[in-house]
Amino acid sequence: MQAFLASHPLVLLCVQAVLVIATSRLLGVVLRRLGQPLVIAEVLAGIALGPSLLGLISPDLLATFFPASSLGTLGVVSQLGLVFFMFLIGLELEPALLRGLGKSALAISNTSIALPFILGAGVAVWLAPTLSTPAVPLASFVLFLGVAMSITAFPVLARILSERGLIHTPIGALAVTCAAIDDVTAWCLLAFISAVVKSTGLAGAGLTAVLSGLYCGAMWFVARPLLARLVRERTDRRGISQRMVAFTVVLLLLSSLATEVIGIHALFGAFFFGVIVPREGGLAHGLRERLEDFVVVLLLPLFFAYSGIRTQIGLLDSPVAWAICGLLTLLAVVGKFGGATVAARLTGQSWRDSMSVGVLMNTRGLMELVVLNIGLDLGVISPTVFTMMVLMALVTTVMTSPLVAWLQRREGEELRAQAAAARAP
Amino acid sequence: MQAFLASHPLVLLCVQAVLVIATSRLLGVVLRRLGQPLVIAEVLAGIALGPSLLGLISPDLLATFFPASSLGTLGVVSQLGLVFFMFLIGLELEPALLRGLGKSALAISNTSIALPFILGAGVAVWLAPTLSTPAVPLASFVLFLGVAMSITAFPVLARILSERGLIHTPIGALAVTCAAIDDVTAWCLLAFISAVVKSTGLAGAGLTAVLSGLYCGAMWFVARPLLARLVRERTDRRGISQRMVAFTVVLLLLSSLATEVIGIHALFGAFFFGVIVPREGGLAHGLRERLEDFVVVLLLPLFFAYSGIRTQIGLLDSPVAWAICGLLTLLAVVGKFGGATVAARLTGQSWRDSMSVGVLMNTRGLMELVVLNIGLDLGVISPTVFTMMVLMALVTTVMTSPLVAWLQRREGEELRAQAAAARAP
Repeated sequence: MQAFLASHPLVLLCVQAVLVIATSRLLGVVLRRLGQPLVIAEVLAGIALGPSLLGLISPDLLATFFPASSLGTLGVVSQLGLVFFMFLIGLELEPALLRGLGKSALAISNTSIALPFILGAGVAVWLAPTLSTPAVPLASFVLFLGVAMSITAFPVLARILSERGLIHTPIGALAVTCAAIDDVTAWCLLAFISAVVKSTGLAGAGLTAVLSGLYCGAMWFVARPLLARLVRERTDRRGISQRMVAFTVVLLLLSSLATEVIGIHALFGAFFFGVIVPREGGLAHGLRERLEDFVVVLLLPLFFAYSGIRTQIGLLDSPVAWAICGLLTLLAVVGKFGGATVAARLTGQSWRDSMSVGVLMNTRGLMELVVLNIGLDLGVISPTVFTMMVLMALVTTVMTSPLVAWLQRREGEELRAQAAAARAP
Repeated sequence: MQAFLASHPLVLLCVQAVLVIATSRLLGVVLRRLGQPLVIAEVLAGIALGPSLLGLISPDLLATFFPASSLGTLGVVSQLGLVFFMFLIGLELEPALLRGLGKSALAISNTSIALPFILGAGVAVWLAPTLSTPAVPLASFVLFLGVAMSITAFPVLARILSERGLIHTPIGALAVTCAAIDDVTAWCLLAFISAVVKSTGLAGAGLTAVLSGLYCGAMWFVARPLLARLVRERTDRRGISQRMVAFTVVLLLLSSLATEVIGIHALFGAFFFGVIVPREGGLAHGLRERLEDFVVVLLLPLFFAYSGIRTQIGLLDSPVAWAICGLLTLLAVVGKFGGATVAARLTGQSWRDSMSVGVLMNTRGLMELVVLNIGLDLGVISPTVFTMMVLMALVTTVMTSPLVAWLQRREGEELRAQAAAARAP
């Protein structure tokens, strides 16, 4: 079978897709009962199909289903999926959210980025001799670990909130707004780091900065109004035409290509293009409806598989490695949860609401995996650090749902107690 | 740039996608004015971006945008697109059409397959010494060319009919029904030929036949009722869930894998699974809506590019080659148009209606390209024969729209003349 699959790349890709989709959906049914979002099942399925579980059980099976020769295609297809996924994430951002944000949201999101960034960067300086190689400039490693610590998974957070019916409560709206700002900020930081890592010297960095500015300006002040005008003229009640979808897909790919060529990442271009697509006229809604399922159902699972292949828990082969992994997770939680909670409290929220926001902001989800894969591709982090950070992302995402449920239950109990107290004179 | 693109497979794939989508859509705007369907523009764009035009203008540009190292990924991605496309084609088939078909439809479609098949197979026997190599068994070459001549592009035909408002006329319904039967028959024939080509000896062929029978039986008598039951229980007015889409995608991939492993082609499994998806309960409609755009807008163009790369018009470098190409085209038209027209006339249609049916059935469209690529992959036909047949497909598809328009105009003129005659006593 191994030889048959290796010589039939399409068959192999289909087998890989079936394996990862089926595993993650089945696991998802179990985890759903435990109140966990699907993304946990997807990450776990990816890890299970990689060297960490399948490879432990049978290296032969791993070599059959995920031979090294297939990783090139798997990588390209899953990255193509990510381009579209990041575009959809950009589409989901309501610019109105960002425009109408209060001081509270700005303070919380800034703190919830700054604190984990500082903690991550600090520990990176300390750990660099152990975890990094001299080939990687210290600044790159430190900056990257800082950003990687400060990610919030905007989509996972939004899904948890809507599953629990919290999305339209004041605290839900605050958390979503903060996450949206975090998302934009983190992606800008990541674009900056990509530029630093890739650019050669000060002149290169300066050129990238100038070109990035030009790109963002052109997208915001030229492409956005043009698109808005086009939408006003071209769409009607019956929805958008396939030609319009084709046109948007070409623009999306061009925007990705532009950012990749500039030296900030292709995914940033996809995300930013999603942000500037006009929300009026049904274009954003139509694009989401028509592209989402193929991307989320088929292509994203391939990314989880690809990411799982690269996660080698076996690399954490000493108590020290596990201790570092635990430390990174702790600092990530302290930075993100602590930062967001304290900032929310300082801007006048109750302790309970502040903690809810903190818990929610601590979700790393899929975004973290995307960022980590970029770091691994850039060569900034080693497979060992990659694996540690994947575990950190898993733990912080797993924490979120039960903690939110617990805080909600506590709130319910207190409300009931207050009501009872009010009834009993 | 060449080195940059070669070392960035995702960027290269995006560039290829942008090139082929943009070229085909721009060309499509021009060709639309000439009354041609989009598929013509897509085929032409694919050919233009291959060695036949881009390679002639600048071999360097061709090597930059479509280096040999990228063709593996391009092939896998475009074939994945085809799997979904064939599934969508299967979904579009209304089983009610096939059930309620009259003698007329059956006679026309049988003739319109048999005649081009016989002509194709006959000319193949004659041309085999020139066009085929001794390495290819004569039977494979002859059977394949027979099938390749008898393809009708069901989706292109349906689109032309609906663009011209003919889809609900008796003649439109007849043509669509015939094309649907043709499609099913041609794919069964192709599955048979794949089995013949791949199987080793009589035992292998027998095994494939038995397994194919089991597969079809299991799909029709087990999977179809189970799916129908599931749909009745699980879907509601709000449409289908993403979980349902994921479940269907897994089944689709499994069906494709099953047919590929059996030895009939993966695309047959995708097509057949589309046929058995229940039409009630909104599942078929929902799947079409959620998967179509990504497939048609992004993945199919990649297939056109892939197919265009393999079309080397330069291989037709002698008057003899062009003569053979012309002969093949002529026989394809005589067989398909002639067969369908005569059969329609014999079953009692007027000459004009019979010719309309004949013209419509003569559309080869994208289906022909799919079949030809399978033949090239199987090694049954050479790149030269591939190129000749691609040109045949192009010519027969280009012919359709103008001829239908001309027949319609003639009919309109006669109706007006009759009306004028009736008014003037």
